[in-house]
Amino acid sequence: MNKRVFSGMRPTGKLHLGHLVGALHNWVRLQDSHQCVYSIVDWHALMGEYEFSGNIRSSVYDMAIDWMACGIDPDRSIVFIQSDVPEHLELQMFLSCLTPLGWLERNPTYKEQLREITTRNLQTYAFLGYPVLQAADILLYRADAVPIGEDQLPHLELTREISRRFNSLYSVNLFKDCEAILTQTPRLLGMDNRKMSKSYGNAINLADTPEEIQVKVKAMVTDAKRLRLKDVGHPDECNVFSYYKAFVSAKEVDARSWCENALKGCTDCKRILADEIIEFLRPVRDKRQKLEKDPAYIHEVLRKGAVRAREIAGTTMTEVRKAVFSASRA
Amino acid sequence: MNKRVFSGMRPTGKLHLGHLVGALHNWVRLQDSHQCVYSIVDWHALMGEYEFSGNIRSSVYDMAIDWMACGIDPDRSIVFIQSDVPEHLELQMFLSCLTPLGWLERNPTYKEQLREITTRNLQTYAFLGYPVLQAADILLYRADAVPIGEDQLPHLELTREISRRFNSLYSVNLFKDCEAILTQTPRLLGMDNRKMSKSYGNAINLADTPEEIQVKVKAMVTDAKRLRLKDVGHPDECNVFSYYKAFVSAKEVDARSWCENALKGCTDCKRILADEIIEFLRPVRDKRQKLEKDPAYIHEVLRKGAVRAREIAGTTMTEVRKAVFSASRA
Repeated sequence: MNKRVFSGMRPTGKLHLGHLVGALHNWVRLQDSHQCVYSIVDWHALMGEYEFSGNIRSSVYDMAIDWMACGIDPDRSIVFIQSDVPEHLELQMFLSCLTPLGWLERNPTYKEQLREITTRNLQTYAFLGYPVLQAADILLYRADAVPIGEDQLPHLELTREISRRFNSLYSVNLFKDCEAILTQTPRLLGMDNRKMSKSYGNAINLADTPEEIQVKVKAMVTDAKRLRLKDVGHPDECNVFSYYKAFVSAKEVDARSWCENALKGCTDCKRILADEIIEFLRPVRDKRQKLEKDPAYIHEVLRKGAVRAREIAGTTMTEVRKAVFSASRA
Repeated sequence: MNKRVFSGMRPTGKLHLGHLVGALHNWVRLQDSHQCVYSIVDWHALMGEYEFSGNIRSSVYDMAIDWMACGIDPDRSIVFIQSDVPEHLELQMFLSCLTPLGWLERNPTYKEQLREITTRNLQTYAFLGYPVLQAADILLYRADAVPIGEDQLPHLELTREISRRFNSLYSVNLFKDCEAILTQTPRLLGMDNRKMSKSYGNAINLADTPEEIQVKVKAMVTDAKRLRLKDVGHPDECNVFSYYKAFVSAKEVDARSWCENALKGCTDCKRILADEIIEFLRPVRDKRQKLEKDPAYIHEVLRKGAVRAREIAGTTMTEVRKAVFSASRA
């Protein structure tokens, strides 16, 4: 029996290249070695987007399409919508009862988000409990591992602490420690050299047309120190070059040479990059277009995914209820 | 169509006379004028009792039996277990997203409980959200009113604020303000003149045998100023007399006279009270014994109650989901 991984993504808008290199490529690969449970975590989305919740439903279906277009295979992996599996909220309630407020209030990610995110009012009860629902997501499937970036390690540690507290309080060994599969992700900036983000509108989306990609790449900010065509450039300081490294490895050496030896101008370099990204995304785009024409299939995939997820979740919850309600410490 | 009331009780132990005069008598009466939805709120119990959760399951069934023995009629009222209706947790999640942390942290009942209850660790995420789940309980059935004591008015006000915020945020008029049906409750103290409480073991339980009642009443503390049999007593300062007022109104005048004129001693007065309470509880006890012999019937009542509750809850949740996910403020 393969080890099980769980991962989720918040349906808050279209997926972009950052999601692809930061997560989806890994998710696709993990399908060869693990039983994969991939959830579109719409409750997590609502926690942040409750004031702007009108787009969540369409994002859910867009996300399912994007995932499958990128190679997530619903015949091998369990692909489902979090809110289709009520056991997530049930386990969250059990875990909420034993999670000290201080663990959540002291969570560094929480404090940082309250400080940084100023376009949303996140001083809410649900948002404080974000990591408890994450713990429920992972523990419900008793995942052996979760593919995450280094920045998410504190959240995983909180999951471990909550699961250990459950085991200890109810004298069971129901939940094991979940491991991190650390994702080595090339850090891609947006077109404007800021952090790539849907809300900045500075990303190339997986669903973009070739024309949209051309326009976006053309607008990319290049090496600020290369003022004239004949000036030599500094590829390692140029965001365009980091896209070559991530998506056009066959031309990485060429691109470095064009730039360092002033063989090509930035406009040409970007035109070539645009063509390469268009080519790179062609199979995704083709598959996407095919999937978009078959909404009934997408619904069926998600429905079946929820059924499979609930089988595992149901087994876990039977044991959770037994552990909690047979506890005899009183 | 009758107006609807919702009320719930936490299954944390045997019901006693305080529950009867403080709530159940009202609940029974309300059945004549309202559609009543009565829930055994086991999630609320778990929030306080997660460290001692082994008794919750048996308390749930004891509570159903006690309710019916006292006159709650499952053919007229909807009687069910909160955790049998997952929509409670679903609505709680929707409401959690829009409930400011400050509303919960500033809740006077919350602060008082953290201060007063020292035998439990209540500094948990779930316990902070207690009023959000209460709001979900009430709003799920769109109750017109809740029968409560004055001390619970702040909680009801919080429910109103949460429901107004929902309506305003999603531009709907889904939830109306819920009214309080204030319960005039004679304040009954326990056998030892402290607050009547299961944890003090100072209450007469509805399930007590006549022998247990005699022992408990015999041990009641009486007027401390009446030292000798010939001393006159002060009924209005005597806890025994408050029991006459609550349960033996036919003998209230007599009892006052026995005491104020030193016509009977406290021992006699208590013996008579014990007999009266035994008599008063006889129909409850008889019905209880009958119900205890038929666990399948209790299960069936609770199962059917959950089905009826879910019908109403399902309709509400369809509208809630529509309101939240069609919101177009972005």
